[in-house]
Amino acid sequence: MSLPSLRLKANADRRLRAGHLWIYSNEIDVAVSPLGGFAAGSQAILEASGGKPLGIVAMSPQNLICARLLSRDTSHMLDKSLLVHRLQVALSLRERLFDKPFYRLAFGDSDLLPGLVVDRFGDILVVQLASATMEQLKDEVIAALVQVLKPSGILFKNDSAARDAEGLERYVSTAFGEVPEWVALEENGVKFEAPVLQGQKTGWFYDHRMNRARLAPYVKGKRVLDLFSYIGGWGVQAAAFGASEVMCVDASAFALDGVERNAALNGLAEKMTCVEGDAFEALKELKAAEERFDVIITDPPAFIKRKKDLKNGEAAYRRLNEQAMRLLSKDGILVSASCSMHLPEDDLQNILLTSARHLDRNIQLLERGSQGPDHPVHPAIAETRYIKSLTCRLLPNS
Amino acid sequence: MSLPSLRLKANADRRLRAGHLWIYSNEIDVAVSPLGGFAAGSQAILEASGGKPLGIVAMSPQNLICARLLSRDTSHMLDKSLLVHRLQVALSLRERLFDKPFYRLAFGDSDLLPGLVVDRFGDILVVQLASATMEQLKDEVIAALVQVLKPSGILFKNDSAARDAEGLERYVSTAFGEVPEWVALEENGVKFEAPVLQGQKTGWFYDHRMNRARLAPYVKGKRVLDLFSYIGGWGVQAAAFGASEVMCVDASAFALDGVERNAALNGLAEKMTCVEGDAFEALKELKAAEERFDVIITDPPAFIKRKKDLKNGEAAYRRLNEQAMRLLSKDGILVSASCSMHLPEDDLQNILLTSARHLDRNIQLLERGSQGPDHPVHPAIAETRYIKSLTCRLLPNS
Repeated sequence: MSLPSLRLKANADRRLRAGHLWIYSNEIDVAVSPLGGFAAGSQAILEASGGKPLGIVAMSPQNLICARLLSRDTSHMLDKSLLVHRLQVALSLRERLFDKPFYRLAFGDSDLLPGLVVDRFGDILVVQLASATMEQLKDEVIAALVQVLKPSGILFKNDSAARDAEGLERYVSTAFGEVPEWVALEENGVKFEAPVLQGQKTGWFYDHRMNRARLAPYVKGKRVLDLFSYIGGWGVQAAAFGASEVMCVDASAFALDGVERNAALNGLAEKMTCVEGDAFEALKELKAAEERFDVIITDPPAFIKRKKDLKNGEAAYRRLNEQAMRLLSKDGILVSASCSMHLPEDDLQNILLTSARHLDRNIQLLERGSQGPDHPVHPAIAETRYIKSLTCRLLPNS
Repeated sequence: MSLPSLRLKANADRRLRAGHLWIYSNEIDVAVSPLGGFAAGSQAILEASGGKPLGIVAMSPQNLICARLLSRDTSHMLDKSLLVHRLQVALSLRERLFDKPFYRLAFGDSDLLPGLVVDRFGDILVVQLASATMEQLKDEVIAALVQVLKPSGILFKNDSAARDAEGLERYVSTAFGEVPEWVALEENGVKFEAPVLQGQKTGWFYDHRMNRARLAPYVKGKRVLDLFSYIGGWGVQAAAFGASEVMCVDASAFALDGVERNAALNGLAEKMTCVEGDAFEALKELKAAEERFDVIITDPPAFIKRKKDLKNGEAAYRRLNEQAMRLLSKDGILVSASCSMHLPEDDLQNILLTSARHLDRNIQLLERGSQGPDHPVHPAIAETRYIKSLTCRLLPNS
């Protein structure tokens, strides 16, 4: 194996030695290894400024993050064989965690598979390739997945914005076998079908599994509002856990068809109401109609996609949570989620506190949820931690 | 009702309006309301600098935190009637959360009952009074608890260090009915008995309930080490969840008798080994004996009791976690808990990352646990959040 060398500047290896996996373009000694000499998607041996090899990296020479560490072992580059090994290590964790084959099988950097996400729906795998290296290795990715999991179908859902920065086209295509429009899954004992072709991201959000499981004690016999419901991940589970009534709000008629489909799948159709429209508008109309809910779940799309959205995004979270609180019954529960990696949990907590004070209500923070263990956090890479879910109790101020 | 007034300096009401409940002695306008004029444990009307009433406070005039807000409503001082109301509000949450009567019923400031902690073990209540006001109201506390819960026994476990600052003596006494030495409880479907008279704190730590529940998928068929086991909260549950073997280490022979008692109660005695001794010493000996464990739980007492302990305490957490990691099998799980409120979760995470790098192992952070919902966090009072539990996977670096 003869790979070119990527040489770091002096001391630029410190963050990597401390555990991080990303190399920034301004950390490269371009006199020794000009970035223009590397093809996007190629692999290289990373070297400290003194020449000591540090590992093998995947190159994105045109990017701010110009390389990502694939391995600290320089003896094996990423190929089918290493992909099989990494997928087996990832699989052994998920098989320990879950009785049934419905989970995120691979979560990028956290599973030492930068640029690769795989969601498993039984025999169907939905794959997102987000780096030039993984795109180049796509045949090896398929071969490795077939070897490890023997799926009946693999879908490439390669339509994320992350691909633009890598200079990759967006596409969705069946990569192996056959993939139906809707695939079955089970979460917390509740049955679902997810639209893997037309839905958001991979079609399903496994990341909130544990937070949805924690709905159970709060919703029994209660009236529940699920904002940004998508296809009913939270709402249908609330109904299955014993809620008396669940209203799902989403801007997409397609998503709400999914709610109805999933409610019917569990014999819960009579408990569900679907409201098509903007969540903020729906909150106003429900307030005007003097509707009240015992439990409100708000799991919006990321309001803060980039750091420059921070101020506007925080304001949106504030507006959303405060408007939701206004609809809560006297002793009400708010489950406030955020998937914005740029919104720290403490900021979301402060937003909830401020909103509660603004409405002159007492607030107790009961639960602090995060992404499930099939979305491991890489403790050196803050960006791998993104899910927050705070469960609060709102009481009259007396 | 005629209560004296406690007058704040200009702008000293801001933090309180934002949700906080504590008043510091340097925030008082002592020209208007000298602190020497208040008896410890008395109640007063708190006023903003302009004279506007803000609520009723419990006085600890000799303390840095000289007063704590009992209510933002000035019409009712804390008496049996308000205690009954607050306990009913606290109880309604716990009854929603738990099928069986084993939980923390009241958690001080977070339940708007500053200075009062009540742990419920079915018909037995263990009460900690930590403020002069609660101490003065102890007859009302008993009467309120009897009215709301009809217990067969109430124990005052008033032996915490917090009482010293309030100028209160430490004592343990039966306050009502009869209290046995050991009381029964159930947690996550596992039976226990807790030594309420002679044990640590109230005899049992309900705060880790949810984190212990999350052991289940990790321990099945595995060899488990439980450091600082106390009476087996983690270890006996690990055995009940299917661990093949569990070793409990504790410095107290009395605690280890509790482990054996609780293991026997669940028919798990043959799976358990107890080692009496210092955890750090035990780790060294186990290393020397080349012992390996698949799952290690470390839930030490607070190494950082005061801010000035921070540096030494962090070093102790570092030493403990690194030594524990050295005993982990190739694909091992470390559950690292801390109850030091002065150790932020991010610092514990960094300690784990640094230790893993030091041993040249890859680390995935799988779960981020906190205190259960019967220990609500007051979102304005950082001190009410104290439990951390990080579950990591340690892998070979390849």
